[in-house]
Amino acid sequence: MSTPAKKRVLTGITTTGTPHLGNYVGAIRPAIAASRDTSSDSFFFLADYHALIKCQDPEHVASSSREIAATWLALGLDTEQAVFYRQSDIPEITELTWVLCCSAAKGLMNRAHAYKAAVQVNEEAGEDPDFGVTMGLFNYPVLMAADILMFNAHQVPVGRDQIQHLEMARDIAQRFNHNYAELFTLPEAVVDDNVAVLQGLDGRKMSKSYNNTIPLFLPEKQLRKHINKIKTNLLEPGEPKDPDDSTVFQVWSAFASAEETARMRAEFAAGIAWGEAKKQLFELVNDELAAARERYNALMEDPGYIESVLKRGAERAREHSAPLLAKVREAVGIRAMG
Amino acid sequence: MSTPAKKRVLTGITTTGTPHLGNYVGAIRPAIAASRDTSSDSFFFLADYHALIKCQDPEHVASSSREIAATWLALGLDTEQAVFYRQSDIPEITELTWVLCCSAAKGLMNRAHAYKAAVQVNEEAGEDPDFGVTMGLFNYPVLMAADILMFNAHQVPVGRDQIQHLEMARDIAQRFNHNYAELFTLPEAVVDDNVAVLQGLDGRKMSKSYNNTIPLFLPEKQLRKHINKIKTNLLEPGEPKDPDDSTVFQVWSAFASAEETARMRAEFAAGIAWGEAKKQLFELVNDELAAARERYNALMEDPGYIESVLKRGAERAREHSAPLLAKVREAVGIRAMG
Repeated sequence: MSTPAKKRVLTGITTTGTPHLGNYVGAIRPAIAASRDTSSDSFFFLADYHALIKCQDPEHVASSSREIAATWLALGLDTEQAVFYRQSDIPEITELTWVLCCSAAKGLMNRAHAYKAAVQVNEEAGEDPDFGVTMGLFNYPVLMAADILMFNAHQVPVGRDQIQHLEMARDIAQRFNHNYAELFTLPEAVVDDNVAVLQGLDGRKMSKSYNNTIPLFLPEKQLRKHINKIKTNLLEPGEPKDPDDSTVFQVWSAFASAEETARMRAEFAAGIAWGEAKKQLFELVNDELAAARERYNALMEDPGYIESVLKRGAERAREHSAPLLAKVREAVGIRAMG
Repeated sequence: MSTPAKKRVLTGITTTGTPHLGNYVGAIRPAIAASRDTSSDSFFFLADYHALIKCQDPEHVASSSREIAATWLALGLDTEQAVFYRQSDIPEITELTWVLCCSAAKGLMNRAHAYKAAVQVNEEAGEDPDFGVTMGLFNYPVLMAADILMFNAHQVPVGRDQIQHLEMARDIAQRFNHNYAELFTLPEAVVDDNVAVLQGLDGRKMSKSYNNTIPLFLPEKQLRKHINKIKTNLLEPGEPKDPDDSTVFQVWSAFASAEETARMRAEFAAGIAWGEAKKQLFELVNDELAAARERYNALMEDPGYIESVLKRGAERAREHSAPLLAKVREAVGIRAMG
């Protein structure tokens, strides 16, 4: 078993959709903070081959990768410390995927939540259970296992919905280790139940599917407009307001220090006007994001630079993936002759 | 659509099991003859990644590849004319496999004969339908589609049992061409219904599963012994014998010229002794194979040479696969930034 000196943490980044404040608060900001932890080795990758499962629009696949890469770089992902690469730059991953397919039980995939959800939708609609299901969707957990096992990651920070995929990766790794050689570390899912969930414009969880998001790098004017659209009640200036029933306050507390949050709580009790509260919220959010937004805009003007960062990350990643794949090939009998 | 000037014919070679006279007569000899046809471009590959589906013994996977490569080279596969490579030396193939997964309907795979046969066996045994079925087996048709589409093959010589896989490759190619760009040639299955089926020692079709084979490159003495074991009836020397009810005659006619076959038919009518008929059969078969057997033994002593031939073949194959994969990546949106 390969035993890297440091704990290795691997984070996959989906490359579809424009990131919004909810993604930032709930996932990106804590991940970037974690990447600065020098007691572990961080791997971050853009999961662009996963994107092909959901998105058949090539322009969107390409632009999303660019936007997401620029976003993480602009927000300060430390690419000297962390290894930051694009999945599709590591040919060892799809090769490993095939090898792992031969150690992965089909019955395991039958039970994958994402697949079962698709089947349920079809059955409710009276369709064939596999209507519209591609082999990409069905194989998704095997590709994800390859993503993780390729780098012998110890820990993978995930949402609750991904725990099952980590269990599948462990199962596949165990089978391989048992049948061939102890090459793979069994990865652990790390679920942070304290992850901040941001409310959207309408007070529900901020989510693209609710169409209630505030995109992360809106120009300043539009950011102000969006914040002004956050739903409030009809209480007049001077009337005391309940902070715990207010999206404005909820977003505030995701960006403010403890002191500032306490101050705003007092202002609510004192009857701050919604307009004033939103004005302060805009300033708070804008202060946190303004410099990153400038960097983001500059990066989007300089895609060649992003490419060079990713290429360098791919080189570093392949220093791990190439030797491990060589061991995997040897173990299964794919060997040079003589 | 890439339109190579010449018709392109692609032949996959399974790398499990020791080749026997039946494989030689039915598959290898005609394929090698076809490879000399300069009016088409031939691609031959060792399907070692497919072998992992069936064989979890790494030593066997490795030695089988070596033996099969040595067999084809010893029998005169023209590796200047034909491109002869090992599947696992072409990383573009597994990468393309992933992309094709995203264009392959799961419903298509549900109907694959090999998968359905496994399910039927399980159901008859009262097991879970997917008991023992790996994702390797289930994905087999997608990998095979990638093998074929990667080289824009026009024709694929196959047995009847493989026709369905060719139809699946066409289906996947059509979906991709429709969704993204017309990059893939739709391959055709070429089924030779006149293919010679050799009888084994017991008179049934020669097949590893019947344990009735004569391995191709047995040492001379053992070849003689095996031929002597071919089942005959109890007719004495001098009694007329029915050639059309005789495995000895059946094997004879697979190796002999028309004239020699006519002569032996007359000898049967004249009551040739079984011992004499087998002696002549041994000489005929041995004459055809002796030089190749010597080359085979020399090649098995020089695996480094086989490796160098395969590496050169892989270079030539990648001259096709690398540019096509680049187009595929571009088409689906996996692109360099800037």
